[in-house]
Amino acid sequence: MHSQETFNAVLTLAEKIAEEYFAPHNAKSDREEPEFDGARVHMIGEISAALQAFSNSGMLAGAMDESLGGVQLPRVIQSASFAWFQAANIGTANYALLTMANANLLQKYGTEEQIQTFVRPMVEGRFFGTMCLSEPQAGSSLADISTRAESVGTDEYRLRGSKMWISGGEHDLSENIIHLVLARTPNSPLGVKGLSLFIVPKFLVNEDGSIGEHNDVVLSGINHKMGNKGTINTFLSFGDGRFSPFGNSGAVGYLVGELNHGLEYMFHMMNEARIGVGTGAVALGYTGYLHALDYSRSRLQGRRVGSKSVESQQVPIVNHSDVRRMLLASKSYVEGGLALELYCARLIDESETAGNEDDRTNALLLLDVLTPIAKSWPSQWCLAANDLAIQIHGGYGYSCEFPVEQFYRDNRLNMIHEGTNGIQALDLLGRKVRMNDGAGLKMLESEIRKTIAKSLEPDVQIARQLENLLQQAIRVTRKLWEDGNEQRALANANLYLDVLGHITIAWMWLEQLIAVGDKSGVFYDGKRIAARFFFSFELPLIQPKIDLLLTMDTLLVDMDESWL
Amino acid sequence: MHSQETFNAVLTLAEKIAEEYFAPHNAKSDREEPEFDGARVHMIGEISAALQAFSNSGMLAGAMDESLGGVQLPRVIQSASFAWFQAANIGTANYALLTMANANLLQKYGTEEQIQTFVRPMVEGRFFGTMCLSEPQAGSSLADISTRAESVGTDEYRLRGSKMWISGGEHDLSENIIHLVLARTPNSPLGVKGLSLFIVPKFLVNEDGSIGEHNDVVLSGINHKMGNKGTINTFLSFGDGRFSPFGNSGAVGYLVGELNHGLEYMFHMMNEARIGVGTGAVALGYTGYLHALDYSRSRLQGRRVGSKSVESQQVPIVNHSDVRRMLLASKSYVEGGLALELYCARLIDESETAGNEDDRTNALLLLDVLTPIAKSWPSQWCLAANDLAIQIHGGYGYSCEFPVEQFYRDNRLNMIHEGTNGIQALDLLGRKVRMNDGAGLKMLESEIRKTIAKSLEPDVQIARQLENLLQQAIRVTRKLWEDGNEQRALANANLYLDVLGHITIAWMWLEQLIAVGDKSGVFYDGKRIAARFFFSFELPLIQPKIDLLLTMDTLLVDMDESWL
Repeated sequence: MHSQETFNAVLTLAEKIAEEYFAPHNAKSDREEPEFDGARVHMIGEISAALQAFSNSGMLAGAMDESLGGVQLPRVIQSASFAWFQAANIGTANYALLTMANANLLQKYGTEEQIQTFVRPMVEGRFFGTMCLSEPQAGSSLADISTRAESVGTDEYRLRGSKMWISGGEHDLSENIIHLVLARTPNSPLGVKGLSLFIVPKFLVNEDGSIGEHNDVVLSGINHKMGNKGTINTFLSFGDGRFSPFGNSGAVGYLVGELNHGLEYMFHMMNEARIGVGTGAVALGYTGYLHALDYSRSRLQGRRVGSKSVESQQVPIVNHSDVRRMLLASKSYVEGGLALELYCARLIDESETAGNEDDRTNALLLLDVLTPIAKSWPSQWCLAANDLAIQIHGGYGYSCEFPVEQFYRDNRLNMIHEGTNGIQALDLLGRKVRMNDGAGLKMLESEIRKTIAKSLEPDVQIARQLENLLQQAIRVTRKLWEDGNEQRALANANLYLDVLGHITIAWMWLEQLIAVGDKSGVFYDGKRIAARFFFSFELPLIQPKIDLLLTMDTLLVDMDESWL
Repeated sequence: MHSQETFNAVLTLAEKIAEEYFAPHNAKSDREEPEFDGARVHMIGEISAALQAFSNSGMLAGAMDESLGGVQLPRVIQSASFAWFQAANIGTANYALLTMANANLLQKYGTEEQIQTFVRPMVEGRFFGTMCLSEPQAGSSLADISTRAESVGTDEYRLRGSKMWISGGEHDLSENIIHLVLARTPNSPLGVKGLSLFIVPKFLVNEDGSIGEHNDVVLSGINHKMGNKGTINTFLSFGDGRFSPFGNSGAVGYLVGELNHGLEYMFHMMNEARIGVGTGAVALGYTGYLHALDYSRSRLQGRRVGSKSVESQQVPIVNHSDVRRMLLASKSYVEGGLALELYCARLIDESETAGNEDDRTNALLLLDVLTPIAKSWPSQWCLAANDLAIQIHGGYGYSCEFPVEQFYRDNRLNMIHEGTNGIQALDLLGRKVRMNDGAGLKMLESEIRKTIAKSLEPDVQIARQLENLLQQAIRVTRKLWEDGNEQRALANANLYLDVLGHITIAWMWLEQLIAVGDKSGVFYDGKRIAARFFFSFELPLIQPKIDLLLTMDTLLVDMDESWL
């Protein structure tokens, strides 16, 4: 049985391990990134030590089934505790994130044998996992994946192809690496409907669970990146013949579930990864904000407006209104973003554990609509918080001796991987708000309206502000799709994502205000001032975007690319 | 005599040298940044070779007086040609920028002897220059500069103190380094009114011009930075006794001009440097845009909306509306920014060469108002173009194998140095729009109105849009200052900078449209579409900021910092 006490204990433990094992090597991982000498990958030893500590603490198994040695933590607690690791060292935490998401997918769609063979060792921290979608010619366009898989009887296949941008694709951190690979079988339909999902382990696993021969998966190269350097990013070749356990026939893979349902299964992992990416973006933004806040309280520079006497001592820069603006903006982004991510985690819990089928279905529906926002909003705005943290630090922020510039570089990835923000915008406007006759959007609207209806003085005015914008956003959605012209509807999809994103975060702030009520204390005052800032300084910025969407401007579609 | 032909020749030469000597080591400078082994600074040899080529070509002396071996190029040509070097390799170009600005200051305020001793070798490329303002406790707050200078008779002084963030502060690129140092003499007034300016050469210069003893200026350390790595950034100690040509009495310095006028002189260099920083930000944004454009035309990914058949070939991503949005936004930023920087350069020319005193004074007045915008707007928005260039490249943009992530990191400095954007906002709202009873702002308003009056169909509507916003901005300015409450007026200075910045760039676009007229061709079509984009997608974003400014919200001033 779980209780507030066990949840608190988990969060405290997460903080402790993150501080002790993850944070200390964050800068070192950035300076001494993983290298490939043509034969082996080298990375600093602290990464392995941290992941072992993480796994030994039971964190890796936290949200897993008891049958697999997990403790079935609610996802909301698991997400909140994992955010500590993401804030402390995103590069190291990513290995765990990928492994957990991989294990969750297989737990859901794998056979009992696959679960025992591959998931159990992942839960124990002995095997790590990856997801292999992208190829050099197929990044955002998954329809163009060309890796081939040929059946060799039963559920065993042989794979050939190249996968790009594979995080955690090669290392010695674990006894084995379990790749989940999208590939195409002969005569399968074209496009995404012909993709199947395969387990391709780096080492084959013997029947007794011991490690067998090296599978025909080889590291062709690694990518050096702007940030997130601790997470090795790889280019993998499947079936190029370097290791051929069964003659030169391809890499050994095991089909997951049914043929041609691969993308559907993969989306289970991707949706989870998208919430994980959003939470990571929040965590990086949040730690940047806290560093900037500390700095602003200790750095003396200049004097208050109106008391310019140079004989007076300089004041901490937190007294300057422009610094306060940057801090409050950051606070409104990171705490608004965190609320959204934890809300999404709760929806995952509800989709699995709510008392009746309707509630479970509804939770999933709402989660579906919110996922592109939960992925993209923090990756844009909590990154903006990292940018502000640099600015607050001035020259020091640009220097590598302070951590904030690394946070920025690390976080910059999050607008790109697991579906760029452009892809999220198309997903939201082109699919999520339209599915089931707009049922998801209606659900979102109805939930926001519930919050608005609950709000009391002094928040009634901002609740009305939100209601007004929500109404406009609904009108925009209708108008964009009224004639079914897809090209015109999607021409400004990113503006639509901006609009619905800010509305969603405003909703999260209104929820926080309701929870705060008239409680006293600086924590609650902080919530009130950040909410007021968001409603006064940030939310109004979407009005011109709504206005522009209503004009149905097709400039972007109509223009000729030769004019660029 | 100059002509269109000589100007074209200069621009072509700049492009050639930038491509041949500056661009090839841009990435290498980033990977192998300058290092200090405790005794000497080491940097890659290509930096020196490029700067020699630059100097040999006459570029360094380009805008200088003929008496000093220059060719008195108009500043607008000099800026445009220098932008090639900034685009190709900002880290290397910075040494030249600082040297030129240093030489210009001394040419204006130095004695004939100082000019012969220090400026002439700079013009010849034998000496390089720096500007030394910041100290560890005095970054934005120049009033707190504490470096001391004591007279030893005549114009010679001895300096003691530490200077921080000094670009180009130590290297072997030139025979000598001429530091321009702000310091305080005994019994001088407190604050900025007690700062004097001194020439402190790394090596003393003998009467015959030969290099003499090492002055007491030593490198205490170098700063490693997020970007701009090719430009060494130093922490310098003056007068700590390591090199003591005249006993342990301090570093030898020579007073420039009069005592206590140091900041005034330094602002001559700083204002020039601010335009230079703005132009550098534009150049980096522009080159990022061009790389992204190239990539978008060659990278095949996905299909057009409505023709999703996976049997059809993938299309270049420039066909996707979200990519076009990012490209057009970038184009509108970088070409709008470039127009502003070149306009400012022309104002410098006019302030020096216009036919009558009034025109010269007016040009200077307008330049004064525009300088904070010319410094800050491109450092924010052309940086945004660099960010979009990463996004357009997707995963490749985040990888170090493509140049765009470096451009972003290099450009991120520009919002910080030479006065942060927060400082520029205070300068604009607190000083520039108020000086001479608002004469500068009136001049700006009148110039924008002239452009509006000149505009013809089909641009009349957007001209009216600009006029409307301009009127509102003028009203905001009046309202902010109507009761003289400085604290309240300046509470949201950064919003004011955003508003006037976008209005200024819109003005530049309208000017470009007028120049374009009804000319045909893709270049002119490009100008038209980028202008239309700016007016439709970008300019409206300032309306909520104007509305917020009009509320005179003092949330940022009134809040308690403990709530953060």
